[in-house]
Amino acid sequence: MSTATNNLTEGISSAEREGVYALLPFILNPSNIARFEAGKVIIGDRRAFPFSNSFVSCETVDEVAGAIKNMVTQGSGPWLSAVHALRIVASNYPPADAFTDVGSQEELLSQLRQARDKLVASRPTNTAIQLRLAAVLSTATEAVNNQQCVDDAIAASIKLILQGIYDDYATRARAMADLIEDGDGILTNCFAEAGFILALAFAARDGKKITVYTPETRPYLQGAKLTAPSIQEIGVAVTLITDNMPAHIMSEGKIQKYITAADLITVDGHVVNKIGTFQNAIAAHAHNIPFFAFAWGRDNTKLVRDDIVIEERDPAEIRLALGMPTTIDSINARYPTFDITPPKYVSGIVTVHGVLNPYMLNNYPNW
Amino acid sequence: MSTATNNLTEGISSAEREGVYALLPFILNPSNIARFEAGKVIIGDRRAFPFSNSFVSCETVDEVAGAIKNMVTQGSGPWLSAVHALRIVASNYPPADAFTDVGSQEELLSQLRQARDKLVASRPTNTAIQLRLAAVLSTATEAVNNQQCVDDAIAASIKLILQGIYDDYATRARAMADLIEDGDGILTNCFAEAGFILALAFAARDGKKITVYTPETRPYLQGAKLTAPSIQEIGVAVTLITDNMPAHIMSEGKIQKYITAADLITVDGHVVNKIGTFQNAIAAHAHNIPFFAFAWGRDNTKLVRDDIVIEERDPAEIRLALGMPTTIDSINARYPTFDITPPKYVSGIVTVHGVLNPYMLNNYPNW
Repeated sequence: MSTATNNLTEGISSAEREGVYALLPFILNPSNIARFEAGKVIIGDRRAFPFSNSFVSCETVDEVAGAIKNMVTQGSGPWLSAVHALRIVASNYPPADAFTDVGSQEELLSQLRQARDKLVASRPTNTAIQLRLAAVLSTATEAVNNQQCVDDAIAASIKLILQGIYDDYATRARAMADLIEDGDGILTNCFAEAGFILALAFAARDGKKITVYTPETRPYLQGAKLTAPSIQEIGVAVTLITDNMPAHIMSEGKIQKYITAADLITVDGHVVNKIGTFQNAIAAHAHNIPFFAFAWGRDNTKLVRDDIVIEERDPAEIRLALGMPTTIDSINARYPTFDITPPKYVSGIVTVHGVLNPYMLNNYPNW
Repeated sequence: MSTATNNLTEGISSAEREGVYALLPFILNPSNIARFEAGKVIIGDRRAFPFSNSFVSCETVDEVAGAIKNMVTQGSGPWLSAVHALRIVASNYPPADAFTDVGSQEELLSQLRQARDKLVASRPTNTAIQLRLAAVLSTATEAVNNQQCVDDAIAASIKLILQGIYDDYATRARAMADLIEDGDGILTNCFAEAGFILALAFAARDGKKITVYTPETRPYLQGAKLTAPSIQEIGVAVTLITDNMPAHIMSEGKIQKYITAADLITVDGHVVNKIGTFQNAIAAHAHNIPFFAFAWGRDNTKLVRDDIVIEERDPAEIRLALGMPTTIDSINARYPTFDITPPKYVSGIVTVHGVLNPYMLNNYPNW
C-alpha cells in the first residue's frame, strides 16, 4: 500500500523520511551530479562513469555551457549545472547591503540574463534548462528588488527545487516499492534514474530479495554504463544482458515485473521512453508480466499519441560502438531515440498520487 | 508459387538454374569461404570482414585446425575448411597407380584419420565438421580400396556435397522469394546465410522492390558486420538498426515480413535461432506481420521444445563491445546464445518442400 499521497498532503518531506540521500548511488546523488563549490561549478563526468568517478570543474559560465554542450552530463545534470552557473556570476558580487546604487543591481541582473542565454543555447531543445533557469532568475530578480543577497537567494532557490524533486522521487519510489514482491525478478530499460533506483533501494531495505535484469541499451549503452553499476552499488542483485535477450529471460520465468522511466506520458496513457521500451512491453504482455512506468509531470500539450514526434538522431551513431565502427560507412542506418508504448501494454503509471491506471490519467490535473 | 519441389523431383540443379554463384555476395561464395589451392587451404577471414576481404592461408592440417579454433570462419566455413584440409594430406601422396604396396595406402588412410581427429577437436561441439569429415573420409577409403587417386576422390566428394547444399539453398530461396511482394519491408535477425540472401536476390531479380531492416545482433554484431554489407552488395536496400528497434520500425508500418534462418527447428515447430529472434517474433505477431524461418535439416533427436538445451556462453563477452569494456568487470551478466520461438508465432517454415505450416512438420520425413 502506498502512503505517498498522505505524506504529500501532510507536507512531510518524503525524501527526508525515507533517508533518500544516504541510499542514492554515487551517480544519482545531486552533489555528484553538479554542485557549486568555492566559486566553481563541479560537474560529475558521466562520460567517464563507471570506469572512474571524475568531475569537470568550471570557473566560468562559458565553461559550464561548454560542458553541457559536450555531453559531460545528462538527465538532471544539464539544468542543475546551468542554475549553479548563475552563482559564478552572483557570487562575484558583494552582498546586497554593499550595493551602492541601482546601476550595480541592474548590472548583476543583466549579467545573469546574459549567462542564462549562453546556458540555454548550450542545448536549445532541453526545456528543463529553460524552465529551471527562469525560476531561479525570477528569485534573483526578487532578491534584487528586496535588497537581499542575490547569491544566497539563488542558492536557496536551487535547494528548494531539489527538495521538491527528491520528495517527488521518494513518493513515487515508495509507491512502486510497495508493489515489488519478495523474490521478484525485474526487467528495466535504459537508465530509469532516481525514481526507479530508489524503489529498488526501498524494496531491498524492506527485506525483499530482488534481482534486476538490465539491457545494455545500444547505442549509448546507458544500461551497461549507468544502470547496472548503480544497482550493484545499492546492494541489489543485477544481471546485464544485451537488448535482444529480454523475451528469452521472460520465457525462463525469471521476470515478474517490467519497470522503466518515461521521458513523457501522454494524457491518454501512451508511454514515450528510450527505444526498446515498447518491444519489451509487448514481450512482457505476452508473458503476463505487468509493466509500470514512472511519470515525470503531466504535459498538457501532449494529450494523445499523435502529439508525439519521435526524434531521429544522427544514424552514423548506429554504425559505432564505443566510438569504433561496427560496419562499413556506406551502410544506411536509422536512429529513432524513443518509442511509444500504447496503454494496452501498460499496467500502471507511477505518480505522486500512487500507481494509476493509464486509461485514467485525465482524472488527475498533475502527476 | 514455389516450383522448388518439382525441380528436386526432376533432378534439375536448382543452383545452376537460378545462377546462384553469380548472385551470392563475396562472403557467401563458397570459394571465398574456404578453398584448396596449390597445396594450401585458403580460408576467408570473417574477423576482418566487412572492413577488408582478407584470407588466412594454411599449409598444414594443424594450421587449419588452429584457424577453425580461433574463429577465423563461421557458418559453413569450419566444416568446409576441415574437409579441404584433408587434401593437404592427400595431395602429398602420389596418384593411386604409383602405390607400390598396401602399406602406403594404409599409411595415407591413417594420416587422414589423424587429420580428422585434429580437425574435429578444433570445435568439438560442431557436428557439421564431424559429419562432413566422415562422409569425405568414407569416399577416401573407397578410393583406396579401388586403387583410385585419393586426392581426386576427396575433391569430387567436396564438390558433390557443395552442389547438394547450394541446390537446397536455391530451392528454399525460390520458395521464400515467391512469397515476397513488391514494396515489402523485411526484418531479419543475425546473419541468415545463403538461403535468405538468395531469396532477396531472387525477389530483386524478379523485379520486386524491397527494403531490409537488419538489427546489429549484439554481442558479436553479425547483423552489422555480415548481413548489412552482404545485402548492400547484392543491390538490395538495407537499413541497419540496433536490437532494441524492431518493434518501433514495425509500428511505423515499415515491415511486412519477418524472415530469419534457424539453427534448429524441432519437429513440433519450435524455431531455435540466434538470441533476439523470439522477441522480434512476438512483436511481429502483435503487428500482424508473418514470420518465416529457413529450415536446415530435420533432426529426429529434437522432436519437442524440451529436447533443446540453450547454450550459455562466457558472460564476459556481454561486458564487451568490439573487445572494449562497456561496463565494470564486477557486473554480473548472462549470455544465452539462442532462444526458442514457439509455433504460435511462426507463420511458415521454408523447406525444400516449400513453405510448411510449423504444426505439420511431422508429416515430412526430411526438410
